[in-house]
Amino acid sequence: MTSSLASLESALDYTFQDISLLEQAVTHRSHSARHNERLEFLGDSVLNFTVAALLFKRFARIDEGDLSRLRANLVKQASLADIAQKLSLSQYLRLGEGELKSGGFRRPSILADALEAVFGAVFLDSGFDAAHKVIARQYAPILVHVDPKTLGKDPKTLLQELLQGRRIALPVYTVVATHGAAHNQTFEVECAIPKLEVKVLAGGTSRRAAEQSAATLAIAAIEAQGPGKGTRRRPRKSAQLSLPVAVSQESST
Amino acid sequence: MTSSLASLESALDYTFQDISLLEQAVTHRSHSARHNERLEFLGDSVLNFTVAALLFKRFARIDEGDLSRLRANLVKQASLADIAQKLSLSQYLRLGEGELKSGGFRRPSILADALEAVFGAVFLDSGFDAAHKVIARQYAPILVHVDPKTLGKDPKTLLQELLQGRRIALPVYTVVATHGAAHNQTFEVECAIPKLEVKVLAGGTSRRAAEQSAATLAIAAIEAQGPGKGTRRRPRKSAQLSLPVAVSQESST
Repeated sequence: MTSSLASLESALDYTFQDISLLEQAVTHRSHSARHNERLEFLGDSVLNFTVAALLFKRFARIDEGDLSRLRANLVKQASLADIAQKLSLSQYLRLGEGELKSGGFRRPSILADALEAVFGAVFLDSGFDAAHKVIARQYAPILVHVDPKTLGKDPKTLLQELLQGRRIALPVYTVVATHGAAHNQTFEVECAIPKLEVKVLAGGTSRRAAEQSAATLAIAAIEAQGPGKGTRRRPRKSAQLSLPVAVSQESST
Repeated sequence: MTSSLASLESALDYTFQDISLLEQAVTHRSHSARHNERLEFLGDSVLNFTVAALLFKRFARIDEGDLSRLRANLVKQASLADIAQKLSLSQYLRLGEGELKSGGFRRPSILADALEAVFGAVFLDSGFDAAHKVIARQYAPILVHVDPKTLGKDPKTLLQELLQGRRIALPVYTVVATHGAAHNQTFEVECAIPKLEVKVLAGGTSRRAAEQSAATLAIAAIEAQGPGKGTRRRPRKSAQLSLPVAVSQESST
């Protein structure tokens, strides 16, 4: 059912001295008692440290808060599941019947955990330098594209920074409507930036989620205006729920 | 004002190739621009990983949840500040005027951060093996005394496990009084274990805190009863607020 671990080794560019460690790393607890959870604990920490060291070296001038934010983004479940997918890790997973039937081999949490366990297995097999090398290899193509100014920042923060950079007043978020019963509500939020004549609407299952969506739309609307400073713009007119809305108005300056 | 770094090196049993790294590690941001916060980021992660690896090796049979709990306890601020104190780290700290005057060299957060930065500096100076060795040396006397069954568990959990081990019904927590205004309240909570005739009262600034204190008192009261199984006890009588109260009653069995 599962592919030969030799091809996983070649994808990792690492050959195990004790292949049973790799076998354990791809074994979910639903499959057998010798499963990967302890290796995952170890792998999670060698991964966190390695990515910290890689970022520390690559970005010599950014502060520790930014380093933390970048790392959190690079080691989060979705990022790990992406790497796991590139390694075709799901082909090697050993899952119990129930997990197999419910598609566990596609589940991001199972993939991310197994990937961490693989890193932990490499560390156990050969020590830190080998684990560092294996992890660095997987992250090399990702690190090339990391933008320390934006990666891992939420849309509201990005919008705020964009406006501050242009010395424009902060956006105003307003809940314009709520729908549904108390524990199953959706929120409609407006994000307005009068100076740029931007007014967008977005929905979400929480006020916060709706605000973040609205901020994303607002950024898109501002970027569509081009690199202007908020004083001269092409007048535009449109009005549509949940899409960028630039309210037409001649610039007063 | 600050002691020579050579004596810190000997306390760490490590000699820096680049002593300016150690100097930076003991420099708080209030002192100068070349401060220790980036090193702290790096040191925090090499510390977390090293302690994970030490625990993984030492406790071959405990699960990843227990490993996480143990690690969290070993790397928390108070634990780091303890180690910093044994190293007399405060003597080497470079603080700005304000921090100096307000006693910053005694503050656990500043000590813990500087210690992490020192570990990060060792890693930068010589790589992982050196950092592992320095950290392992500081933790060796601590790891000897780690009890994986109890370390880092809160009193309510410990009490619950103690009772489950004796097949006794769980304790009942009751708020018996609150004092003070809404945002400055104190709570008085009773913890009762009828089967053991234990009834204790404790106060706290939150319900949770009061419950934890009450659990601590309940454990003390049970331990004072000796290793009995809850069926035969010396009858005792006492009644005092915020102290163990064993309600006297002849055992019915």
